[in-house]
Amino acid sequence: MWLRASCLLEFDFPVATPFLLMLRPRSGTQQWIAREEYLLSPSVPAVEFTDPFGNLCQRLVGPSGPFSIRTTADIESAEESDAAPGAPFVEVQDLPDSTLPFLLPSRYCESDRFAEMASKIVAGHWAGYDQCQAIVDYIRTTIQYAPGAGQQIISACEVNENSQAVCRDMAHLGIALCRALSIPARMVVGYLATLQPMDLHAWFEAYVGGRWYTFDPTQQSLHGGRVAIAYGRDAADVAVYTQFGDPVELLRMEVRVEQLTSPPA
Amino acid sequence: MWLRASCLLEFDFPVATPFLLMLRPRSGTQQWIAREEYLLSPSVPAVEFTDPFGNLCQRLVGPSGPFSIRTTADIESAEESDAAPGAPFVEVQDLPDSTLPFLLPSRYCESDRFAEMASKIVAGHWAGYDQCQAIVDYIRTTIQYAPGAGQQIISACEVNENSQAVCRDMAHLGIALCRALSIPARMVVGYLATLQPMDLHAWFEAYVGGRWYTFDPTQQSLHGGRVAIAYGRDAADVAVYTQFGDPVELLRMEVRVEQLTSPPA
Amino acid sequence: MWLRASCLLEFDFPVATPFLLMLRPRSGTQQWIAREEYLLSPSVPAVEFTDPFGNLCQRLVGPSGPFSIRTTADIESAEESDAAPGAPFVEVQDLPDSTLPFLLPSRYCESDRFAEMASKIVAGHWAGYDQCQAIVDYIRTTIQYAPGAGQQIISACEVNENSQAVCRDMAHLGIALCRALSIPARMVVGYLATLQPMDLHAWFEAYVGGRWYTFDPTQQSLHGGRVAIAYGRDAADVAVYTQFGDPVELLRMEVRVEQLTSPPA
Amino acid sequence: MWLRASCLLEFDFPVATPFLLMLRPRSGTQQWIAREEYLLSPSVPAVEFTDPFGNLCQRLVGPSGPFSIRTTADIESAEESDAAPGAPFVEVQDLPDSTLPFLLPSRYCESDRFAEMASKIVAGHWAGYDQCQAIVDYIRTTIQYAPGAGQQIISACEVNENSQAVCRDMAHLGIALCRALSIPARMVVGYLATLQPMDLHAWFEAYVGGRWYTFDPTQQSLHGGRVAIAYGRDAADVAVYTQFGDPVELLRMEVRVEQLTSPPA
Repeated sequence: MWLRASCLLEFDFPVATPFLLMLRPRSGTQQWIAREEYLLSPSVPAVEFTDPFGNLCQRLVGPSGPFSIRTTADIESAEESDAAPGAPFVEVQDLPDSTLPFLLPSRYCESDRFAEMASKIVAGHWAGYDQCQAIVDYIRTTIQYAPGAGQQIISACEVNENSQAVCRDMAHLGIALCRALSIPARMVVGYLATLQPMDLHAWFEAYVGGRWYTFDPTQQSLHGGRVAIAYGRDAADVAVYTQFGDPVELLRMEVRVEQLTSPPA
Repeated sequence: MWLRASCLLEFDFPVATPFLLMLRPRSGTQQWIAREEYLLSPSVPAVEFTDPFGNLCQRLVGPSGPFSIRTTADIESAEESDAAPGAPFVEVQDLPDSTLPFLLPSRYCESDRFAEMASKIVAGHWAGYDQCQAIVDYIRTTIQYAPGAGQQIISACEVNENSQAVCRDMAHLGIALCRALSIPARMVVGYLATLQPMDLHAWFEAYVGGRWYTFDPTQQSLHGGRVAIAYGRDAADVAVYTQFGDPVELLRMEVRVEQLTSPPA
Repeated sequence: MWLRASCLLEFDFPVATPFLLMLRPRSGTQQWIAREEYLLSPSVPAVEFTDPFGNLCQRLVGPSGPFSIRTTADIESAEESDAAPGAPFVEVQDLPDSTLPFLLPSRYCESDRFAEMASKIVAGHWAGYDQCQAIVDYIRTTIQYAPGAGQQIISACEVNENSQAVCRDMAHLGIALCRALSIPARMVVGYLATLQPMDLHAWFEAYVGGRWYTFDPTQQSLHGGRVAIAYGRDAADVAVYTQFGDPVELLRMEVRVEQLTSPPA
Repeated sequence: MWLRASCLLEFDFPVATPFLLMLRPRSGTQQWIAREEYLLSPSVPAVEFTDPFGNLCQRLVGPSGPFSIRTTADIESAEESDAAPGAPFVEVQDLPDSTLPFLLPSRYCESDRFAEMASKIVAGHWAGYDQCQAIVDYIRTTIQYAPGAGQQIISACEVNENSQAVCRDMAHLGIALCRALSIPARMVVGYLATLQPMDLHAWFEAYVGGRWYTFDPTQQSLHGGRVAIAYGRDAADVAVYTQFGDPVELLRMEVRVEQLTSPPA
């Protein structure tokens, strides 16, 4: 499936403001970036680096006055996210080193406090993929997905006390529950073609059966058409923009995803 | 200053238990490891990897029954930790990429909630090292250092409501306050030669004047004789041991640091 | 200076052929990628990873039959490459760790055999930038730049016995001579706006005065308008494509660089 | 098998001399470092970093006058190196990213020139482990292992014209031949318990059947008791010491490996 995804951010800075951005998706096993644009208006110097999670991050100083960032990408994305019911739990001693940071508690995923709850949710399920699926089902049926309802980032513990949540919150809870079972889990921020209303989206991946699999507690079934922009331990690692200095208002944010009828040529 | 530092951990496992350890200090700019031992009893297979923060981590499965880990190192450690009153603040756009993860809020350092408090504490101080020093002075005079008083790891927000704290808590608060001023700050776990009573210790480093400097809110003056074992964003990254599966009791933990009268030969 | 740079590769594969490509320039301190395309025809799955030098590499299996790869990028590139006559030599003990691999001899830069020659060339010059400049002047005046004259990659020793060379060869010689003086030096492959005839270009960077500087023995003066695609120790690390299995013919390669009259918008 | 391995290097420097060392083996999948010493006499400041291949490297400035480096390690090493006749060739498109640099030609392994020779040697063997074994058998029966016979490092092409060689040369030839078949191969420098006469040793590893396997053309059968000190593409990456500035003489080098009758305690 070929998608054109774009994100527009508009600011009006009272003073020059340093910025850190994560808005450049990378080609990976499930997506291929055929074309992309990253436009700064007005044009200012920017540099790029790779963070410890492998994300491409952009650094710049936004000038005082109006400033906009517009990114667009044409991406080939898998029609369906891979699913693997029955894929087994990987014993901790057999996990690849690179997955281990995703077993630890993190800013918004206090996995050490979810051992009991996780055990109850997955009771009777095969260890591994089926446990993750049970967690997703639990979240989806217990907490109402309410896009736009959450402004402040809240942690898995806080989500757990609410009856409704945004995608990010639901991912935090899913991650915390997986880690409590010693299943590595990580946050993904990106685009989802079928999302209604359109916005940036967040979901999570869990490592079972020898690879990472996609889970999304906001969706009834596992839609494809996903474009990962950034990976991290939780929302603290994957903010699409981080601004330093006195807080500035985001005047406008516009996200679009359309399906292309043919590959870019 | 030549030190011999050792750490002993004793367990009695009901079942075989996967473990992740950070107990091997690395030679670095302020410490040289001349000799070290890492003894497992009984001897079991173990492997080592480097985590995203550069720490050497050991993985093993502790066998059922009694199990002990004993590490010893002979280290040349700086007599005095470097201090640099007046060292300037580094503008965010000029920070090395590698310092940027240490600007973000993390599990136990909710820096986004400390902007106002940080501004007050550092009012009237030169931006940079002197601000960090003001933060350390504030913590030391406001919160009573109570070694052994804290079992559960608490976050900077929670520390801030208490009148006493352990070294780890005080470091969390210091880190959160520095980051709130856009000064990169990171957690260090290690040994401190003069600590009373002896235990593992935690302090923090802040990036000002173009390098990392040591800060320790538990100490009246900045003693040298430090041995860093692990670096991270906060305590979540630098647990000297992480155990998976059902919780097991640490039967005994013994930390020793003695000064050697001559270099190892 | 805004440039549009493109590279077209055309093949006709007798059998499916695994490929490794380095054709995606990254935004860095001296260039900003505002827009890019990476088109495969026919479209095949491709994945991307970062190599040890930080280059973005693409992996794919070219299908049997005609296959083309076309990449295009709109880049803001510095008008002038930075120059710093007088920038001092950095003592080996003060070099950043990341520069050290670029001090060692490598496949095509046998720096250990150039100590005497390097000493003679730089006699009377200040240690550092001026030595590198003396090396570049020596190469430019001793060896005739003959674009298109070299097909097989040859090493610095072999270049040194010839009277003419391509850009890659001249860079190899420059790198070997710098390293022989304990100055870190690395290969760059990329685009140069003013190159005649247009082709992919190679030059080198040397680390003096605390940063990397651009040197190009093929040019009388140091033109800007450069776009780095890949960095490495020498040509062995930075092939824009590496093909595995029985050798296949490159039917056509076309490189274009044009200057844009206005930033992309 | 528990081993005590040590290496002594003695110099007498006319002037202070910057040094890069690789003499600290790391715990890994096939070896566990239970105890180690790294003694500098006289004691000088030293720092450590990890190179792109994951080796621990030490940096120091050797003072003018006599200077010695003595490293000792107690290591649990596998009794037997794993062997896996029949382990299959991994298609290039399925190789892990991390193995890809070990497919390319390097300083001393001109793999691009060995396609024909490699094909002949492995004719009739199953693709994968058995091809590597055929290469090792070819080298062992064609080239006489002559410890101490080679001072200057020579490349696979040069080795191929000789009738005798040292371990390093034989490894270079084996690596070049494997890579010519699209099998990733890398150099290892380390200790071998049974080596006669005792010295530092070099062998190689090839990636087949989904992991790295040990191959040693100097040995009739694949002895265990190996301790890897450093990994790289060839000898250029894994020098146990690299000295900068005017060449200095190594006055004495002494390598010892003894088998311990019991684990260190």
